[in-house]
Amino acid sequence: MEFDADARKLAQAHVDEHGFLSWLGLTIEELSEDRVVMRVPYEGKLANHSPGGEGNVHGGIAATLIDTAAGFACRTALEDPVNDGLATIDLNVSYLRPATDDLVAEATLVRAGGSVGVATVTVESDPGDGEWTTVAVGRASYRLFRE
Amino acid sequence: MEFDADARKLAQAHVDEHGFLSWLGLTIEELSEDRVVMRVPYEGKLANHSPGGEGNVHGGIAATLIDTAAGFACRTALEDPVNDGLATIDLNVSYLRPATDDLVAEATLVRAGGSVGVATVTVESDPGDGEWTTVAVGRASYRLFRE
Amino acid sequence: MEFDADARKLAQAHVDEHGFLSWLGLTIEELSEDRVVMRVPYEGKLANHSPGGEGNVHGGIAATLIDTAAGFACRTALEDPVNDGLATIDLNVSYLRPATDDLVAEATLVRAGGSVGVATVTVESDPGDGEWTTVAVGRASYRLFRE
Amino acid sequence: MEFDADARKLAQAHVDEHGFLSWLGLTIEELSEDRVVMRVPYEGKLANHSPGGEGNVHGGIAATLIDTAAGFACRTALEDPVNDGLATIDLNVSYLRPATDDLVAEATLVRAGGSVGVATVTVESDPGDGEWTTVAVGRASYRLFRE
Repeated sequence: MEFDADARKLAQAHVDEHGFLSWLGLTIEELSEDRVVMRVPYEGKLANHSPGGEGNVHGGIAATLIDTAAGFACRTALEDPVNDGLATIDLNVSYLRPATDDLVAEATLVRAGGSVGVATVTVESDPGDGEWTTVAVGRASYRLFRE
Repeated sequence: MEFDADARKLAQAHVDEHGFLSWLGLTIEELSEDRVVMRVPYEGKLANHSPGGEGNVHGGIAATLIDTAAGFACRTALEDPVNDGLATIDLNVSYLRPATDDLVAEATLVRAGGSVGVATVTVESDPGDGEWTTVAVGRASYRLFRE
Repeated sequence: MEFDADARKLAQAHVDEHGFLSWLGLTIEELSEDRVVMRVPYEGKLANHSPGGEGNVHGGIAATLIDTAAGFACRTALEDPVNDGLATIDLNVSYLRPATDDLVAEATLVRAGGSVGVATVTVESDPGDGEWTTVAVGRASYRLFRE
Repeated sequence: MEFDADARKLAQAHVDEHGFLSWLGLTIEELSEDRVVMRVPYEGKLANHSPGGEGNVHGGIAATLIDTAAGFACRTALEDPVNDGLATIDLNVSYLRPATDDLVAEATLVRAGGSVGVATVTVESDPGDGEWTTVAVGRASYRLFRE
């Protein structure tokens, strides 16, 4: 599979058929072996309205985005990115600042071995002061099931 | 605040007003200083239908549940659990098995210090063979903002 | 292999031949499928003497102990615990309190699948007030190489 | 404090007085607000000689190096890097490949807020085939105690 516009469209079609990911409005902006970029647009339905979190996107959304983007980054290293399988082994996220706007995640493949893959992800947004910056960083490891 | 039926109802009302958490159908089954139990009922909209993940709940759902349950566990240690704030510092999840049924998370407060709290969470479900078991374990640390 | 006194002695002999682990004075107090307990005795050489960490055991010691104890916990699930291999995929540690005495780690096997194992670990010590308690909690996942 | 040669020497003197870190032979190669680089030279005493780990540096060494380098990276953001304190909240490491040579860690400060700091670390070594590459990646968060 070439990682060109067609690959991105195929992956986006997969997201659009996924109940949860399509509800988030998740879009795949780039998909290549070097760079996977995904966006979840801000909507009030994603935000906390509790003390200490007025209008901030729930942490589960960044975690979901990190797991999804890192997984796609690992898929780019599979011979058959569409049909080979993978399963998350471990996911971690450090939350740096609140997010009050779209979340944009950029995932980088760190290592794809025979059976395990690892990718790191940086998530950017507006922390509430209008200055777009990194709001979360994360990493995930995957069991790769190569055909 | 007493951690009795009223506290649970208050917390459930908070969840029901939260766009994302109410869309998940998240229910708080127990809420005390010793035990926080939350459930997300299985629905097809939460599942992956990709290779290697047929009908399995997306990993982001378990991550969201772990962050939410661990956060509530830390809130039980705050003087004013409703009005004091907290913010996730770090979240991690190990995925042990696929989940093909409701996810039930039990969070345990490990430590609530002056400014940082930590809780561990076990998530149970049916991995696909009808034998209800642990499908994920996680941990989260929080910045506690005591009044 | 039976997890009896002989197994513990065999494992202790392995530790005693390991440069780093023997320098730490690491002892295996229990080794069974249900419980792995290891101790690193307090020595001044393990402690920080910097601002904010007077006499506290360096965080790397707890991390080492967690990785070692969790690895042994996973080994108990291998058919040949001595000759089958494993490699750490991911390790995490939350530091709850300073440690000013021996570190005692108890590891619990959470899941040993065909190719991946996960164990959680609790580390206890004296945080400085004479009240022995949990000072760190951690978790590690391993790639299991079954014969 | 200027992050010049003097700062590096001061930090190295601190390491040299630390029992554990000096036993590792840890050297600080660079110390600036942009880059913290530390090295632990390979020695047989640091290596595992068990099945699946012949001659590979014990995972606890990389964990120690990541915690130490990330902590120094956060210190560069403190007004008084020498006297202000910090304490690790959470540490995580993904092990990508075995390490059979020196470990060289490069830490990058991701965020230093009022009370919490986060840094990411990349560890390089020779995985056994003579091709120097990334063998581990990690991240740590710290409670910052500003004067």
